[in-house]
Amino acid sequence: MQEMTPLSFDELLAVHAGAVEDLLRNLLDERPREGEIARPERLLAAMRHGALNGGKRLRPFLLIESARLFGAQGEAVLRVAAALECVHCYSLIHDDLPAMDDDDLRRGQPTVHRAFDEATAILAGDSLLTYAFDIIADEATALPASTRLEIVLRLARAAGIGGMAGGQALDLEAEKAPPGEEGIVRLQAMKTGALIRFACEAGALAGGASPVHRERLVAFGEAIGLAFQLADDLLDLTASSETMGKATGKDAAAGKATLAGLHGEDWARKQLEGLITQAEELLEPFGEKADILREAARFVARRQH
Amino acid sequence: MQEMTPLSFDELLAVHAGAVEDLLRNLLDERPREGEIARPERLLAAMRHGALNGGKRLRPFLLIESARLFGAQGEAVLRVAAALECVHCYSLIHDDLPAMDDDDLRRGQPTVHRAFDEATAILAGDSLLTYAFDIIADEATALPASTRLEIVLRLARAAGIGGMAGGQALDLEAEKAPPGEEGIVRLQAMKTGALIRFACEAGALAGGASPVHRERLVAFGEAIGLAFQLADDLLDLTASSETMGKATGKDAAAGKATLAGLHGEDWARKQLEGLITQAEELLEPFGEKADILREAARFVARRQH
Repeated sequence: MQEMTPLSFDELLAVHAGAVEDLLRNLLDERPREGEIARPERLLAAMRHGALNGGKRLRPFLLIESARLFGAQGEAVLRVAAALECVHCYSLIHDDLPAMDDDDLRRGQPTVHRAFDEATAILAGDSLLTYAFDIIADEATALPASTRLEIVLRLARAAGIGGMAGGQALDLEAEKAPPGEEGIVRLQAMKTGALIRFACEAGALAGGASPVHRERLVAFGEAIGLAFQLADDLLDLTASSETMGKATGKDAAAGKATLAGLHGEDWARKQLEGLITQAEELLEPFGEKADILREAARFVARRQH
Repeated sequence: MQEMTPLSFDELLAVHAGAVEDLLRNLLDERPREGEIARPERLLAAMRHGALNGGKRLRPFLLIESARLFGAQGEAVLRVAAALECVHCYSLIHDDLPAMDDDDLRRGQPTVHRAFDEATAILAGDSLLTYAFDIIADEATALPASTRLEIVLRLARAAGIGGMAGGQALDLEAEKAPPGEEGIVRLQAMKTGALIRFACEAGALAGGASPVHRERLVAFGEAIGLAFQLADDLLDLTASSETMGKATGKDAAAGKATLAGLHGEDWARKQLEGLITQAEELLEPFGEKADILREAARFVARRQH
């Protein structure tokens, strides 16, 4: 028998992204589920436009691999990952709205309010957010009821006023009154950190991790979240517009304070290496099994786009 | 010992509304819950503005009384009722936005986007919707995990693309292309019916009703939902602007087709009496215990404002 060549990190990322995309496509079909009356065509099309956009699906990847660390895989885990991606995509649709960041393009495609209209974009975001909780609570997500309920609670906390939505509100305020270092850290922990942290925690929950292991994954998620934001700041500060595929220096132009901007490029690179080390140490008890999550930490910290 | 005078329907409605308002105020305090990072002041103020508005709290009332029919009352039921009201209030905030109905006033107060700004109103709606699932999933809602999970699922289905949000999308389309009778019925069952139906079903679930009894409450909720919409149409068709406290004939002016408009006032009144009879018949097995829900049906069908 021929031995299987293990997938590279990029290949595995693509495999999981494909699986999540397929499941999302399936979940966003026209068939009303039990208790639903109908799925209006245009709204559904807008939800698809916002969710089936060929993203890297980094959050689902972290969730799937965190669950696999504890021996869980398959449909149930994939459904929780798809629910998380619904929440991420809802946040992008609403962030792009004229009243928020007013963006016309995302991944080279018209944003939802440009491809459809503003009202439909608001409702598509609302519906994707709502659908996330539907997907987790549905018995097709074959996890114990107490686990699914805990995942619902953690997702709501990560996405709501004390997490992502609250962070977006702080970000809007930051344009008018730039926050200090502490304020920037809080803003970013909420706006981008909370959902990345949730990805790792939900994976641990789906995998039935012990409380101690769950806490490790939470801390790992926090380190990854910080690295993600710092790498983003750094790209914004340094990358050419060709590499990024979008206007750069945008944060600086909008007067947005970032840690990288505050402390400079060298400091940021050193911080990033420190976060990778920290993330790797957190995974120590899991040995080789956690290699893919270690690679994920490096991928997030060192990404060039 | 002096005998207690039983409360009138209006008094009981006010008592429940007060309890829900108090709990919502408590839930919307500045204290971050475990897993939340911070509650940004301005966003929280916008959520309060949208949720603590002195409404009749009809949906919570139906939920609380449906639960009481099966012997359940107290904090857990009240929390589910407050979660439902969060979803109702989120929908009002988003419906009032310039891109949707573009309303400046609600209950004589500036709408959230007028009192704050559009971006904050979008985020306040998002956060209230998200918080609803937090409230139900929190263990402070002391119901069995499987019950809470079923309530999460039913709420998501009632509020999402196949329910309220989908109905709102159909309503936007109806302004451009008036639907036929079947289309109007579907639109209304989704836009207003789904959440009223959920109120009755969730009460039955919280009360541990048998599947047969739960189905009766679902059918009762559907009848009430139809009556609610028909009474609304009728008011729009006939009431003076003094009684309504807002411009009337608004639906007709906006070119919105309603069943009352299609078939006339007499037909609508007959339909309403038929729905009351139907609702009362559905409650037959519960005897006198269901009297308050019978009164609720009459209240909804005959309201003058």
